[in-house]
Amino acid sequence: MTFSVSILGCGAAIPLTHRNPSAQVVNVKEQLYLFDCAEGTQVQLRKNHFRLQKIENIFISHLHGDHYFGLMGLITSLHLLGRESALHIYAYHQLEQIIQMHLHASKTVLRYPLHFHAIDPDRNEVIMENKTVSVSSIPMKHNFPTCGFLIREHQGKPNIRKDFLEGKSLDVSDYGRIKRGEDYIDSAGKVYPNADITLPPAPPRSYAYCTDTAYDEGIIPIIENIDLLYHEATFMEDRKADAEAKFHSTAMQAASIARKAHAGQLIIGHFSARYKEMDKMLDEAREIFANTVLAEDGLSIDIHN
Amino acid sequence: MTFSVSILGCGAAIPLTHRNPSAQVVNVKEQLYLFDCAEGTQVQLRKNHFRLQKIENIFISHLHGDHYFGLMGLITSLHLLGRESALHIYAYHQLEQIIQMHLHASKTVLRYPLHFHAIDPDRNEVIMENKTVSVSSIPMKHNFPTCGFLIREHQGKPNIRKDFLEGKSLDVSDYGRIKRGEDYIDSAGKVYPNADITLPPAPPRSYAYCTDTAYDEGIIPIIENIDLLYHEATFMEDRKADAEAKFHSTAMQAASIARKAHAGQLIIGHFSARYKEMDKMLDEAREIFANTVLAEDGLSIDIHN
Repeated sequence: MTFSVSILGCGAAIPLTHRNPSAQVVNVKEQLYLFDCAEGTQVQLRKNHFRLQKIENIFISHLHGDHYFGLMGLITSLHLLGRESALHIYAYHQLEQIIQMHLHASKTVLRYPLHFHAIDPDRNEVIMENKTVSVSSIPMKHNFPTCGFLIREHQGKPNIRKDFLEGKSLDVSDYGRIKRGEDYIDSAGKVYPNADITLPPAPPRSYAYCTDTAYDEGIIPIIENIDLLYHEATFMEDRKADAEAKFHSTAMQAASIARKAHAGQLIIGHFSARYKEMDKMLDEAREIFANTVLAEDGLSIDIHN
Repeated sequence: MTFSVSILGCGAAIPLTHRNPSAQVVNVKEQLYLFDCAEGTQVQLRKNHFRLQKIENIFISHLHGDHYFGLMGLITSLHLLGRESALHIYAYHQLEQIIQMHLHASKTVLRYPLHFHAIDPDRNEVIMENKTVSVSSIPMKHNFPTCGFLIREHQGKPNIRKDFLEGKSLDVSDYGRIKRGEDYIDSAGKVYPNADITLPPAPPRSYAYCTDTAYDEGIIPIIENIDLLYHEATFMEDRKADAEAKFHSTAMQAASIARKAHAGQLIIGHFSARYKEMDKMLDEAREIFANTVLAEDGLSIDIHN
């Protein structure tokens, strides 16, 4: 079952012809979660063959334009394209006023319900939960109210052993009971203990999106053992002082967080427009954490069970 | 001297991968005027090799998102890129509040002066004037407060005949006096009447941007004899009823306006996303007004003297 992260934009501050500002899609079992929505996101969604209407939940890290200036366009396009199902937006409270002011200015009454969920960027808490995943906020250390997001699958149910199933014809309710942990009793009264006929479920997969932030070990307990971590790396070591002053991170700092949190894999992104040769940045990160990749628009990474 | 119109986007409503929503640059003698600023405009400016900081005046036709959702991104990028010179925005008054709310949300204090000029879309009046051009508002017939824009060069000064100049050494003040209409008197006292030594100036060039609007002959006196007219053609004749209901125009209606206004050339644009084969739309327009071209992103048209 799918759990993939697709980068729609990974540049800092300013849209470039080859690199859009922050936006990415997390696809968990064909449900699409959008993390940030910079200018150009809806076209990036189209270019990467995502159906706009499949997005139900949008999470905005903070109200710097390079993380949300594409949101009104997306909200409007979903309306013009005939959406009827609800859209949920999770963001700092001020965004709600901004959305309403735009809609008011264009006298737009949306055809679909838009639910705004104000989040407290200083808290680590579950902000969305459905049958498949939960999403939690991660406080970021930025010069502005900002949070990252942690999306985690729910623990699955045990799998029934194939060798047990051979030659038996269980009905749907039998499957349900076994997956809920009950023993199986056949028509002759023979008891099969649950532990003997099931295999443990696949471990739940998880992804964390951490931007914009200075180096902050405070997030490590929250993202410990994450399968995949996106951590901003606005600068290289040559501009470590800039990173500190502007509450951003270097590639090495991002890699340190990944190593200390025992992440499975690291994606670095949110690159300053000044960097053209990205290989050097990657080298810096890999010195600290080998399993690092560079974000680029269009990159998609699967997390396997 | 340059007078060119460059299309950055010419689609209606929704950004597509091959066609951006409304934005265009008018370059008059290397001064750039931006007409509308849909999402993606700043990247389109880059792709078409315009220097963002050369834009001093931005005109927004109305507050439907496909005409202004790229404005906040552009305003912010100009700031981040170090702009110091003033930027002027001409639009319906509500846009000022929207801009201020965005700046407030991101705690941005712009490094450059941003001057907002509220325009009355129901009036045809000069809304901007400098040494080179004047820009006037043109009331549009839309379901929303909307105006088009007419940009016109000022009448130039007479040119001094080359055959007169031969063998003479005039100083700068002589040139100035002749161009202001005075006769020339040489050192021997010989009088050269102004009419004999000058040629009339090139006729001032003009361009009108008319979107979004239903067919409206009321604009004809305003745009009469325009060199180049951009007129929206959201629909073809097959959807004339839609055009009327939605206060848009068909290609034939755009062409009728061009013909009745004695325009030099017509660009049709603001195409509905439903139309893929644009040649048929062009044919419809050319039945009425032969000198019609289809807008497309990246198209640039020069107006020659």
